[in-house]
Amino acid sequence: MLEKLIIVRYGEIGVKSPKVRGRFERRLIENIKTVIGDKIEIKQGRIFIYPQDLNKTLESLQKIVGIVSFSPAVVTHTDHDSIKELIEAYITELVTDGSFSSKDSFAVRCRRVGNHDFTSQEMAAYAGSVVHGITESKVNLSNPDFKLFVEVRGDKTYVYHEKIQGLGGLPLGTQGKVIALVSGGIDSPVATFLMMKRGCSVTMVNFNNHPFTSGSSEKILKMHKKLKEYSVGSKLKLYQVDYGEYLQKCKEEAPERMTCVLCKSGMYQIAEKIARKEGALAIVDGSSLGQVASQTLPNILATRYSTSMPVLSPLIGLDKVEIENIGKKIGTFDISILPDGGCSAAPKHPETNAVLPLVLETLEKIDAENEFDKAIDGIKLLKK
Amino acid sequence: MLEKLIIVRYGEIGVKSPKVRGRFERRLIENIKTVIGDKIEIKQGRIFIYPQDLNKTLESLQKIVGIVSFSPAVVTHTDHDSIKELIEAYITELVTDGSFSSKDSFAVRCRRVGNHDFTSQEMAAYAGSVVHGITESKVNLSNPDFKLFVEVRGDKTYVYHEKIQGLGGLPLGTQGKVIALVSGGIDSPVATFLMMKRGCSVTMVNFNNHPFTSGSSEKILKMHKKLKEYSVGSKLKLYQVDYGEYLQKCKEEAPERMTCVLCKSGMYQIAEKIARKEGALAIVDGSSLGQVASQTLPNILATRYSTSMPVLSPLIGLDKVEIENIGKKIGTFDISILPDGGCSAAPKHPETNAVLPLVLETLEKIDAENEFDKAIDGIKLLKK
Repeated sequence: MLEKLIIVRYGEIGVKSPKVRGRFERRLIENIKTVIGDKIEIKQGRIFIYPQDLNKTLESLQKIVGIVSFSPAVVTHTDHDSIKELIEAYITELVTDGSFSSKDSFAVRCRRVGNHDFTSQEMAAYAGSVVHGITESKVNLSNPDFKLFVEVRGDKTYVYHEKIQGLGGLPLGTQGKVIALVSGGIDSPVATFLMMKRGCSVTMVNFNNHPFTSGSSEKILKMHKKLKEYSVGSKLKLYQVDYGEYLQKCKEEAPERMTCVLCKSGMYQIAEKIARKEGALAIVDGSSLGQVASQTLPNILATRYSTSMPVLSPLIGLDKVEIENIGKKIGTFDISILPDGGCSAAPKHPETNAVLPLVLETLEKIDAENEFDKAIDGIKLLKK
Repeated sequence: MLEKLIIVRYGEIGVKSPKVRGRFERRLIENIKTVIGDKIEIKQGRIFIYPQDLNKTLESLQKIVGIVSFSPAVVTHTDHDSIKELIEAYITELVTDGSFSSKDSFAVRCRRVGNHDFTSQEMAAYAGSVVHGITESKVNLSNPDFKLFVEVRGDKTYVYHEKIQGLGGLPLGTQGKVIALVSGGIDSPVATFLMMKRGCSVTMVNFNNHPFTSGSSEKILKMHKKLKEYSVGSKLKLYQVDYGEYLQKCKEEAPERMTCVLCKSGMYQIAEKIARKEGALAIVDGSSLGQVASQTLPNILATRYSTSMPVLSPLIGLDKVEIENIGKKIGTFDISILPDGGCSAAPKHPETNAVLPLVLETLEKIDAENEFDKAIDGIKLLKK
């Protein structure tokens, strides 16, 4: 079998200033190196990995944010004879393993960087004739069954046929730290992932509503483990806040319908306190407008009012089905739907039209600030 | 040609409480009626439209948020003979117009609501035998070329083969009002659309940075016209704020690198003032974390600090290419990329790590509040 290297493409970094770009590239390579022990080099806006175990490395690359796509490839010197020899060996291998059949139509796409005594079109035509010489397949430039990519970069020429899609986004850790409110539900893990994808280092905060929930941490630990797979190159701390006492107080001393609003407001306020300790600059949550009773505009306004830190809600404009699809893709959905009994503190008719002055007055009346301080004092670090 | 009706499916409304659901359904029907003059009825969680001009109505439904999918269908009484006759006529028409050929494999999917003396499986088998009787096509249940849907609802049976995807989301106007900051760029129109999709009535606010931009309103008017296509059932007001004088002051009296931060902070503060007048409860913008220099976490924190209203950024967790794809789908992208010369107020090295106290102090020093009041006084309503 031919020896493969992997060409890794990264996206938005490309358009940034040289300084920012350099920082992003270095961080992406550092992140890759934490899970991949192979030789890595960066050249002309591409990362080249020389894997010891190809499949294992390909699998690891699937989970690294900031990578747009990658291709297992073979390489040779940029001269017609070497390229011919390489393509012959490459195509013969694909025909043998069934990836390419003589019945398939094909096209060669050529890209060229540097100065050469041939054009990209000429090289594509040359490579096409080599392929045809082996398989006698038909050329179909507009809608081929099989595409062969020939990338000529200076004195090296790379040949590949697969472009595997990566997660996209920006390298983890280039965008600073955020606090993510994460439950065992469907939405908040997806929101957390999206902000990791945009380059944030995340600290997860989970609220334990016992005795209004089972109090078990099993589900959130499973969720943490799944999200940790994508946290390549950054820690993913998990804090848990005992929240039952505050909820008990809300139920006893505030109008019943306000429980969810007071609950959410408290989560943001506690998250802000944690953020200041952790050096995080924003709070992330899974709000999706109108999806459930607590996510109306009046409730969003009232629950966020007491927080001076930005609350980022990457799902705010998405439909449930779109959120579920992301959750399925990243593997959080199957954990989210494990039964957990829900929260019994939620009233039958929760407030959907919160009135800000009333919310502020009630928080004052029940001395919520004091409850939040107690909750912070009792915070547990479940995962470092 | 057989006379068609259209079955319209709506999504998330289905899971809401009966009261909320009734309100959402009424609003969706009202919205549809503003553009479609056909007879409409609602039954068992579906809307049925009896169109005078099928194609025109189908085209209109594409632009109405809150609709998940719709199918042109034919209908008859629920008895075997009538169903057989209808399917024969329907399939014959599809064979004639080339939508279905005898070479295609097929499957029948049957859904049943109500009490009948047959099961869904039995009806599917029966309908399948009718189709086979005409075309002699092969049945393929797992991966058919062609699917026929038979929906038995009480004494009516509907037959169709197409499910056209709608925009999804919630009916426009069910989620209250927001102010959207809209430029002629790629992102903010997409953000605006996503919040319309989630049911918000939007008031657009555009900032005219003349003399730092051309000052022409042509592009924003084009953008408004495009977004207005999706604003079925709600107004889409467009305000324009003259912003050049404030920017001039920023450039003259504040450190040069802070111009963009001061610009964005002012936009939110002015948007909040407009929101209070308009009864809007949130501000929407096109921020996407890390996409450009102004969209770092420190800048987001500093620019939003002086606003007590929630800022919703539905693109905060999306990549540029994902945003562009939505823009292309809804038709805003082609307008966004029309050349407009950009904004010459932007410094060569804009602040990417804004320091909150310094931003607040600078806003104070340049008496920004006064500039914002002046800007509000001179606001123009470009579209009612």
